[in-house]
Amino acid sequence: MNSRVWIAGVGMTPFGIHPNRSNHDLARLAISDAIRDAGVSANIGMIDVAFYASAAHGFLEGQATISGQIALRGMGIGTIPVHNVENACATGASAFNLAVTHVRAGEADVALAVGAEKMHIGDPQKTMSLFDAGFDVTDRASLERTMVELGGDLDEPDLGHRSIFMDIYAAMARNHMRIYGSTPEQIAAVSAKNHAHAVDNTRAHYRRALSVEDVLAARRLSHPLTVPMCAPVTDGGAAVIVCSDAGLARLHTEYPIEVLATVVGTGTDRDTTTFDGHLAQHVATRAYDKAGIGPDQVDVAEVHDATAFAEVLQSEMLGLVPPGEGGAAAERGDTSIGGRIPINPSGGLESKGHPLGATGLGQVFELTDQLRGRAGRRQVDGARIALAENGGGFHRGEEAVTSVIILKGT
Amino acid sequence: MNSRVWIAGVGMTPFGIHPNRSNHDLARLAISDAIRDAGVSANIGMIDVAFYASAAHGFLEGQATISGQIALRGMGIGTIPVHNVENACATGASAFNLAVTHVRAGEADVALAVGAEKMHIGDPQKTMSLFDAGFDVTDRASLERTMVELGGDLDEPDLGHRSIFMDIYAAMARNHMRIYGSTPEQIAAVSAKNHAHAVDNTRAHYRRALSVEDVLAARRLSHPLTVPMCAPVTDGGAAVIVCSDAGLARLHTEYPIEVLATVVGTGTDRDTTTFDGHLAQHVATRAYDKAGIGPDQVDVAEVHDATAFAEVLQSEMLGLVPPGEGGAAAERGDTSIGGRIPINPSGGLESKGHPLGATGLGQVFELTDQLRGRAGRRQVDGARIALAENGGGFHRGEEAVTSVIILKGT
Repeated sequence: MNSRVWIAGVGMTPFGIHPNRSNHDLARLAISDAIRDAGVSANIGMIDVAFYASAAHGFLEGQATISGQIALRGMGIGTIPVHNVENACATGASAFNLAVTHVRAGEADVALAVGAEKMHIGDPQKTMSLFDAGFDVTDRASLERTMVELGGDLDEPDLGHRSIFMDIYAAMARNHMRIYGSTPEQIAAVSAKNHAHAVDNTRAHYRRALSVEDVLAARRLSHPLTVPMCAPVTDGGAAVIVCSDAGLARLHTEYPIEVLATVVGTGTDRDTTTFDGHLAQHVATRAYDKAGIGPDQVDVAEVHDATAFAEVLQSEMLGLVPPGEGGAAAERGDTSIGGRIPINPSGGLESKGHPLGATGLGQVFELTDQLRGRAGRRQVDGARIALAENGGGFHRGEEAVTSVIILKGT
Repeated sequence: MNSRVWIAGVGMTPFGIHPNRSNHDLARLAISDAIRDAGVSANIGMIDVAFYASAAHGFLEGQATISGQIALRGMGIGTIPVHNVENACATGASAFNLAVTHVRAGEADVALAVGAEKMHIGDPQKTMSLFDAGFDVTDRASLERTMVELGGDLDEPDLGHRSIFMDIYAAMARNHMRIYGSTPEQIAAVSAKNHAHAVDNTRAHYRRALSVEDVLAARRLSHPLTVPMCAPVTDGGAAVIVCSDAGLARLHTEYPIEVLATVVGTGTDRDTTTFDGHLAQHVATRAYDKAGIGPDQVDVAEVHDATAFAEVLQSEMLGLVPPGEGGAAAERGDTSIGGRIPINPSGGLESKGHPLGATGLGQVFELTDQLRGRAGRRQVDGARIALAENGGGFHRGEEAVTSVIILKGT
């Protein structure tokens, strides 16, 4: 059993549209990148256990059940345990949690979490229908009741095609506006801030700056959300190698990052018309306890901005900004690089992109670079403690799964 | 961190056809059964982490990504981590492995592994097409080349509908017949033995005794396999609660079973025309090492007999019978209850049934009952050490994943 767990290496493909790369190509590129990063002695044969995160490969391409084995065998991995994991948009973070736990248990000195998603399969209709699996498919009526309860009338037939999750986030946003008086301008400020951050991220899907006015003037998806407030459909892969002290020595890792906490949780039944007792609060509280820190000690965070509103809400639930002030904080510049608590320096899901299984690991990639002081023009000065929040699915008024990871630079 | 891990409780629905029960109903029934079994103080609120094993729910019913969260929230579980895992027909055993590792790591004192599969969805064609996801779907040509290499011509167009896996097992069987001279009669003896065992299992899908002659005379699927040599399409759920010493005390468990080893592995590239260096050998060797025992100390085993040939092969790979003698051992009665090394006292997949995600956990259910001396007319006298082997998928000439679990009665 190992008392400390480290990130030895991180890898990531550019997120974007990769017409000539398969799901497995994306995974392998990310893994090779992570191995190179892990240390001068690192090689594929040193990995003791692997977790393969892909939420869409079975659905979109019919490669279910052993996707990870096929991807990894092609790289020369033999006989090691490979587990295929799925947890909606928090699939990558769940794989990370399992990899860390395996090292913690002494079952592995070097563990791999890799996520890959090929979302552009030439059939946009099919890709969008993927999102119809992320709630209780036997009870769509109750999903719709919950949304009306949260956000009022949903009947906006003229707004064109979008995933059900944009409607869900829009309903939650309207609930937030009702309770706290937050505004579409504030939500747009989050989007504008993340688009500005992405300009300097060579691995981001979109790298164009947008003003608050640009964001508000863009095509509306579901009030108050417009297109640039929502994560695009993106292909990509990301990989993280975690290890014990013994693993670090074997790999000859130069810049290890310590894993202070990784907590995954599912929701409780509560009054969903408020945000009290939200799943992310529970998970964050547990993660802060494990890490032995409070939210005020976090220097930089990656937050699951599947929509700009999600960042508003989650930055409050994580205690990074006061309740109701997620939007106002963005408007004031508090959450920009250089601000009090920079959020999504990578550009976040809205600009970097959201290849489901890779997303949570892509957050860890960014934060590892930040803690190593290697983030270039996106560097958050003096970052020592970093937090990643990744969530997904929807059940009974909130995410079905949320993950919080806390990391420390050395 | 916990040095010892125990099985506190096991639960299982009858395996069979459940027209009025959903995937989640089956899971919940199995969990309730396991909780009752775990101890007088046990209740759903004591579970610290859950692993939900379902290989088909997304494919067959469109409930992907958060199936476990939905199933468990309905039982009153809140905020705990829930992970959805998939590893072809070894999905259940993989969930068990992850649950044990979480307890070992000290991340949980009580962990749940639950598997459920609703395979009868009123569309047999769709159910069978599920099996077309368990190999590399981008390279069917190489799958077919491997099968011809193993077993000669595959062209038997008149044998009717069957899953590709029956063809794969048939090719492997023909290879075994070529190398060792094993016979269709020996393979039929395995099936007859398992059908005889199932007669006394009230949870089995089929409970009729069949003679070797009956088995050989049944409809042929792919030479040398006939229908009763192959696992049927089955619905069912199974659950296992594992825990630490502290968990045992909290649950007030009366008959704990110790987990000596749980090892999961994936294949290597080797000459697939022999059986040397087969994945199951690697995994079993590691499991015996961890458990500190040899194959001669195993008193009873559940072996993944998706076909009767699979049991022939795996009983050899596990070292329970000498190489080439898997069929002969069954013919001699060595692997019957009362024989030298009873295999599949439950009736195995051929008779008990094979609800994919539940299968590996159903094996643990049977062995736990055996080690507690509660198996009734199926009891293997004096069973103290038990082994379960569960495998699935197919990649480059062998299973893509194999699990071996070794348990000890107290």
